[in-house]
Amino acid sequence: MEKYLQRGVSAGKEEVHSAVSNLYHGLYPKAFCKVFPDFLAGNENYVNAMSSDGSGTKSILAYLYAKETGNAAVWQGIAQDALVMNLDDLICVGATDNFLFTSIINRNKNLISGEDIAQIIQGSNEFCKSMAAHQINIHFMGGETADLGDSVRTITVDASMTTRLPKSELILTDNIKPGLVIVGLASYGKASYENKYNSGISSNGLTSARHDVLSSFYAEKFPETFDPSLNKSVVYCGSKKLTDKLPETELTIGEALLSPTRTFAPVIKQLKNNLPGKIAALINCTGGSQTKVLHYLPQGLAVVKDNLLPVPPLFKFIQQESKTDWKEMFKVLNCGTRMEIYVEEKDAQTVIETAAKFNIQAQKIGYVESSLQNKVIVQNELGNFEYL
Amino acid sequence: MEKYLQRGVSAGKEEVHSAVSNLYHGLYPKAFCKVFPDFLAGNENYVNAMSSDGSGTKSILAYLYAKETGNAAVWQGIAQDALVMNLDDLICVGATDNFLFTSIINRNKNLISGEDIAQIIQGSNEFCKSMAAHQINIHFMGGETADLGDSVRTITVDASMTTRLPKSELILTDNIKPGLVIVGLASYGKASYENKYNSGISSNGLTSARHDVLSSFYAEKFPETFDPSLNKSVVYCGSKKLTDKLPETELTIGEALLSPTRTFAPVIKQLKNNLPGKIAALINCTGGSQTKVLHYLPQGLAVVKDNLLPVPPLFKFIQQESKTDWKEMFKVLNCGTRMEIYVEEKDAQTVIETAAKFNIQAQKIGYVESSLQNKVIVQNELGNFEYL
Repeated sequence: MEKYLQRGVSAGKEEVHSAVSNLYHGLYPKAFCKVFPDFLAGNENYVNAMSSDGSGTKSILAYLYAKETGNAAVWQGIAQDALVMNLDDLICVGATDNFLFTSIINRNKNLISGEDIAQIIQGSNEFCKSMAAHQINIHFMGGETADLGDSVRTITVDASMTTRLPKSELILTDNIKPGLVIVGLASYGKASYENKYNSGISSNGLTSARHDVLSSFYAEKFPETFDPSLNKSVVYCGSKKLTDKLPETELTIGEALLSPTRTFAPVIKQLKNNLPGKIAALINCTGGSQTKVLHYLPQGLAVVKDNLLPVPPLFKFIQQESKTDWKEMFKVLNCGTRMEIYVEEKDAQTVIETAAKFNIQAQKIGYVESSLQNKVIVQNELGNFEYL
Repeated sequence: MEKYLQRGVSAGKEEVHSAVSNLYHGLYPKAFCKVFPDFLAGNENYVNAMSSDGSGTKSILAYLYAKETGNAAVWQGIAQDALVMNLDDLICVGATDNFLFTSIINRNKNLISGEDIAQIIQGSNEFCKSMAAHQINIHFMGGETADLGDSVRTITVDASMTTRLPKSELILTDNIKPGLVIVGLASYGKASYENKYNSGISSNGLTSARHDVLSSFYAEKFPETFDPSLNKSVVYCGSKKLTDKLPETELTIGEALLSPTRTFAPVIKQLKNNLPGKIAALINCTGGSQTKVLHYLPQGLAVVKDNLLPVPPLFKFIQQESKTDWKEMFKVLNCGTRMEIYVEEKDAQTVIETAAKFNIQAQKIGYVESSLQNKVIVQNELGNFEYL
């Protein structure tokens, strides 16, 4: 944890949670996203939800990659990252259509060109189009690109998304109970709606992964890509270049780290049809990764994950390079399993088959049981880890 | 203009406009905000609109002020800035109730504390409460605070806002025509819903104002507050400290530069009642300031502003310190007149009296006439300026 703190990041965000603790948290305080009355249209059978999030420091990887390879198209993936960080949170409360979105880009104009911005806009557009093919409509409502070089070293790419859905379609985490099984959907592979292999990385944990994997070459050549006040020992302290090959794959390390965050919206939309009313809960393993569910678990439950999907090459590689222990790895990076679907045992096979139709690997990764203390247990060949 | 470019900012944003030129711009491409069909509820008599924007580099002034004075409450004003940058754009299409909002804060955790974040959240809350007293409901739907020290030198504070309104309440700029008069509302003074004197600064043009007014003391002591790649000659090249007095006022320069952006929502809401259907257009003079209307003007019109409100002390002071010519000043800073209300001559007095009820100075600042070429003319004791 020491290294995270030194790098000015945290998986926990306790002080932010404390700052917002007095706010109104909506109709269902334990829902995966805050859900509010239908302020917009005043229909008591509907709710509103809104999300804001972005690609985080993954945009720095895109910056390095574009500078090093001359390939500005990498910015399109960053647009998808920002969108999916919102979309896949909102699908966890059951929203699978009817999204409005705006983009918020803050850039250092001396380093990020109009062409880079155009690529981000195009990436947003392409992603929305690919979702529309699955009847998941995301409307691009505009946004802001601000020139803030005094505030922003390179660029930040954020998005905001609004949706309205019928109460009857809501999926809430308070339905999690002993006896349910958890089907996990893989973050990696090549889904039917993706156009190349996805490493599974998503947009979390990338400050550490970047510094742990990449070599001091990047500190010297691109000093605009890290906080100069950081202790030099935690800055680009790996041995690799973005153009090096990632073992066990066809990808370079840069391509793997920049795989756009996968959305599970098409799968969840299909599942709502195939198992109406049968999805007890959905958890998107972003910040906090395999421990994410701890924030949403009703009292007196343990989540046992004794059969997570295989850890794909990029995560093994990051572990080797960073020497991070596996207990920490599962808390910071999804390590291959990203979307958790909580269902009755009898419905698990339908979930697995639905995911397979989209060429997404899925399996029963664990179950829920009673427990005096809420916890998550991860058990596999890498160890036996308990998170409180 | 040379200095703006060197500082990596621009009033024009031509390359950003070009990047988004192929997008769908909504039902009324010349509306002040993009207006879309009612995607959210599917009622053909309603529309949806969404806005994203933030406090820009004004957050750097708050950072300096908080460090220098120890007063973290200054962050509350930054929250208001981010909110009003969205709210007052949306009121220009006629929306005056029923807003959803999320906040997007990206910070360098080593420099911006949990207490600072708590102040921003509280500022958002207080502002929403103050608007609720005028039946302008803004619902805080959550948001994201991300620790991105490698991307963000200090902090960026953005907000996103969604609204839904009846088509019948829309206000569009294509109603601007020869013969209309323009009532201007003052950006400065103390409105009935403000708790202290407002310098009128808003959230635009502050990169230049900060560097032109403040002394090199800030470059030396707070190198985290500017892009180190800037030419030293354009960095903190003024002579003042934030704690110095602003001439002709009771304020320090820091207090004046940090006056929270005034909203005109309560006035516009009241005006919609007092002059139903009679407001031809509304223009919020943000980026581009007195030339803002040029983006929205139907073909063949000149806007003549021969009676702008008096230039208040802060803008005179910035002009003296920066030696910026007045033609440029009126293009970069609102210089005292921020909201433009286009009405028939006979309705001007009602607008002025309505503003006066909120203790906001207003006057007939100009008129619209036919012209071969679209333009804005500013005529006053400071000069006779034409903008194309």
